[in-house]
Amino acid sequence: MSRPVLLAGQWRPARETGTFHAEDPSTGSPLSDAYPTSHWDDCDAALTASADAAIELRNLPVERIGRFLNSYAARIEESAAAIVDLAHQETALPKTPRLATIEMGRTINQLRQAATAALDGSWSLPTIDTKLNIRSRHGPIGPVVVIGPNNFPLAFNGVAGGDFAAAIAAGNSVIAKAHPSHPGTTRLMAELALPAVREAELPSATVQLIYHMSREDGLRMVGDARVGAAGFTGSRLAGLALKKAADAAGKPIYLEMSSLNPVVALPGALATRGDKIADEFADSCLAATGQFCTKPGLLLIIADDQSDGFLAKLRQRFTDRPSGTLLSTAVARSLGASLKTLAGAGAEVLAGGSPVSGTACRYTNTLLRTSGDGFLADPETLQTEAFGNATLVVVARDLDQARVLLEKLDGQLTGSVYSDTQGSDDQAYATLAPILRRRVGRLLNDKMPTGVAVSPAMNHGGPYPATGHSGFTSVGIPASMRRFSQLECYDNVRPNRLPIVLQDRNPNGQVQRLIDGSWSAADVAPRA
Amino acid sequence: MSRPVLLAGQWRPARETGTFHAEDPSTGSPLSDAYPTSHWDDCDAALTASADAAIELRNLPVERIGRFLNSYAARIEESAAAIVDLAHQETALPKTPRLATIEMGRTINQLRQAATAALDGSWSLPTIDTKLNIRSRHGPIGPVVVIGPNNFPLAFNGVAGGDFAAAIAAGNSVIAKAHPSHPGTTRLMAELALPAVREAELPSATVQLIYHMSREDGLRMVGDARVGAAGFTGSRLAGLALKKAADAAGKPIYLEMSSLNPVVALPGALATRGDKIADEFADSCLAATGQFCTKPGLLLIIADDQSDGFLAKLRQRFTDRPSGTLLSTAVARSLGASLKTLAGAGAEVLAGGSPVSGTACRYTNTLLRTSGDGFLADPETLQTEAFGNATLVVVARDLDQARVLLEKLDGQLTGSVYSDTQGSDDQAYATLAPILRRRVGRLLNDKMPTGVAVSPAMNHGGPYPATGHSGFTSVGIPASMRRFSQLECYDNVRPNRLPIVLQDRNPNGQVQRLIDGSWSAADVAPRA
Repeated sequence: MSRPVLLAGQWRPARETGTFHAEDPSTGSPLSDAYPTSHWDDCDAALTASADAAIELRNLPVERIGRFLNSYAARIEESAAAIVDLAHQETALPKTPRLATIEMGRTINQLRQAATAALDGSWSLPTIDTKLNIRSRHGPIGPVVVIGPNNFPLAFNGVAGGDFAAAIAAGNSVIAKAHPSHPGTTRLMAELALPAVREAELPSATVQLIYHMSREDGLRMVGDARVGAAGFTGSRLAGLALKKAADAAGKPIYLEMSSLNPVVALPGALATRGDKIADEFADSCLAATGQFCTKPGLLLIIADDQSDGFLAKLRQRFTDRPSGTLLSTAVARSLGASLKTLAGAGAEVLAGGSPVSGTACRYTNTLLRTSGDGFLADPETLQTEAFGNATLVVVARDLDQARVLLEKLDGQLTGSVYSDTQGSDDQAYATLAPILRRRVGRLLNDKMPTGVAVSPAMNHGGPYPATGHSGFTSVGIPASMRRFSQLECYDNVRPNRLPIVLQDRNPNGQVQRLIDGSWSAADVAPRA
Repeated sequence: MSRPVLLAGQWRPARETGTFHAEDPSTGSPLSDAYPTSHWDDCDAALTASADAAIELRNLPVERIGRFLNSYAARIEESAAAIVDLAHQETALPKTPRLATIEMGRTINQLRQAATAALDGSWSLPTIDTKLNIRSRHGPIGPVVVIGPNNFPLAFNGVAGGDFAAAIAAGNSVIAKAHPSHPGTTRLMAELALPAVREAELPSATVQLIYHMSREDGLRMVGDARVGAAGFTGSRLAGLALKKAADAAGKPIYLEMSSLNPVVALPGALATRGDKIADEFADSCLAATGQFCTKPGLLLIIADDQSDGFLAKLRQRFTDRPSGTLLSTAVARSLGASLKTLAGAGAEVLAGGSPVSGTACRYTNTLLRTSGDGFLADPETLQTEAFGNATLVVVARDLDQARVLLEKLDGQLTGSVYSDTQGSDDQAYATLAPILRRRVGRLLNDKMPTGVAVSPAMNHGGPYPATGHSGFTSVGIPASMRRFSQLECYDNVRPNRLPIVLQDRNPNGQVQRLIDGSWSAADVAPRA
């Protein structure tokens, strides 16, 4: 018997086309629980129930959404130990500090931030023009399909992570698709979501869960007429297929796909703090066995007297540090394929480059190197993402070549520049930073990109193909909520028919509204 | 000799693949000026120059953008009479009040509002988290291709209208494509744009103009790597082709396509003010010979004792009013084809339905009718847009059928509901309005949709296929500016390297910024 799916408020047997098992990446062996791959009928049932829930949700006070998110956060917190245990089993990510402290804390905090933002209401940019009596806001867009990735079993989980929290806080129902590498972790959280939904008196289909479906049914879902929008975090291949299906149906989809997250270390910075930068770079590349969306997959340095020495330092660190366990056999296989592709395009292996013997999903920490000329000979292939504990250093001949090279880069989530604090790199910064700026969502100075704080100014987004739309972020509340909204205007609509946030009275005394061109938390003055 | 194009700050002969002439719609005869259809080489040159201009623009003070927009508005105002004369010749739209007062006023006002918003800076939602030193804003996205429609030669003109103003105010360079039905009007305005660009000391390629290009080159442009985004207003057929090309390249495109703008007139409203509603509906349908994006193309009423009487009133008005001149032979032809399609799907002609004899581009005011059953038999065909002075009345059997019918509607720009002010329609409103709400960008009460004020709360947008993305509006500043932006985050970036709007000091004392979760116009407090 495979595990039931969560449809329309009930855990019910899937109409399954097959079953699958997660694996324990530390042994490469399948875990015992069987999970269903759903037939389209399950997807169809989820869509209908979600569309009905979306209509009901529009008429409920926002306090219920806040109550749900806070209750869900509290329930996850209470059950944290069991969730962390299973997540560790399914992903091999370390329990401490990674799963238990960092990721669990982030997950709970994110749900609570979303609750606060939903209750506050300012996220929806309420805008009121009193003379014309036109009022608008960002309102819920309808059912949101959330497809989570393999690398954050908690904080980006389809049924509990950032996209989920943003979609719910914006007033939408969610159909979550589990990542097949951690179905159990997803199940444990969904089991807590349902009583939280009931406690908050939300429609029972506000949160639904399907574990897996065929690729074809996934594409069909994101373009279905009942869907409002979709959120996806994962590989470029899967993301682009989903984008095509959603685009063809005119459905917004927010994708967070691959990124190399280039780091540029300028000569003055390497001369004055090369050891520190080598440490930071190795930490950033190897943390979580390199399985962050923001792992620096490309380091750009400019050839000079010290560059060989710096490479030696890096090599030492990559060789000395233990190599972690990867998330799955599939990730290890994909990493091996990427390394082969990169080597085939001329990248030289300075460290690592091979699987670790044994049954665990492991690869040696891998440091690759190519020259600027080598990179420019095949920039497309040399931008192949190697998801895992591997990175490529490109040694440009000079500043001018570094400039040309950055101009070849695809859109990225992040780009970092390390420069001398005494000014010797300022000219180079002025040359390179503007090129990077246009290609990245987040530009960093003197800092590695792997930390992605859940903070209002964060942008976990960037130009295509890092994401599907450079105007949006998947991390950072309230901005991430607006992805799952549509702009709703009310023209001359009678006062009692307006959404509460657009009525004359400021509903909570704190929502910021653009009234006649000025932001304020005031009530609309009564008309004369 | 055809007219030159505006490329990289110079009026230069087009590399042309052919020429075309606008026509005088009141006679159906071609006007004398020849305009070029450009070869890809012109598009390519425009893209390269625009990309260079976009880079320069990023480093210029926003005051120059404000100066350009204000100077351009003043120049258009000075030359208004000549522009209106030519626009009248090319479009047959009445000079007064339409072109000279309403549309010219709107165009100038829109450019000035854009200048004010650019100088203010709040449109970019600057967000600063002081503890983490992460800062973000919406910044310019790069060259914007603006493709204007036939029906607003001034206010939606590619080189002077709403998309143009929004794109420039957000800090972008623009490549405008003229609509081939009014190239002269477009030329006159572009001739004023160039000296305004020079006066404001903007890069000379900030504004460029190409009159026409092959369909294939148009598709190629919106997906070109040098482009940031595109704006299009026009037909669904052209819009969907552009969307497909832009989507495939991962380039944002904002489309304002066809819309039926359904109006629902409930029984209580018809009983108490049927004459007034008949007047308003006929005015709204026939203004500008029905050539508004927001013309009501579908009126839904519910059969009762009075519905035949109301239809008779409408018929009288459609018959009595003079029929105006359409924008072009192409528009007249397309209107004829749409009426044929609608009649073929069972719509009965109550008034009009045929071309007016003579050479002018004219059709008799056309009122069509179908039953709810008739509509439901072929809802797709009966949603064919008839762009021009024609509309379809659907008489539903009862409220329940009206509900079913609204559920069949595609995404729309607007939806209006007229209801009794004494409450007799409240139940019906509660049933129908939520269905309409999900399908429209702007919901109106007791008001026809044709007025689209340039006001912050306006939403000239809506769910697909009315537009390409329901989160955005093409009218209404500042919201329309954010279409042409990307989210830019600065993480630990040194203070002197930050955009001015993200530096600690509030640059003008008035830009609203979200600092540590609170909106304010304050400076960032110095760190301890």
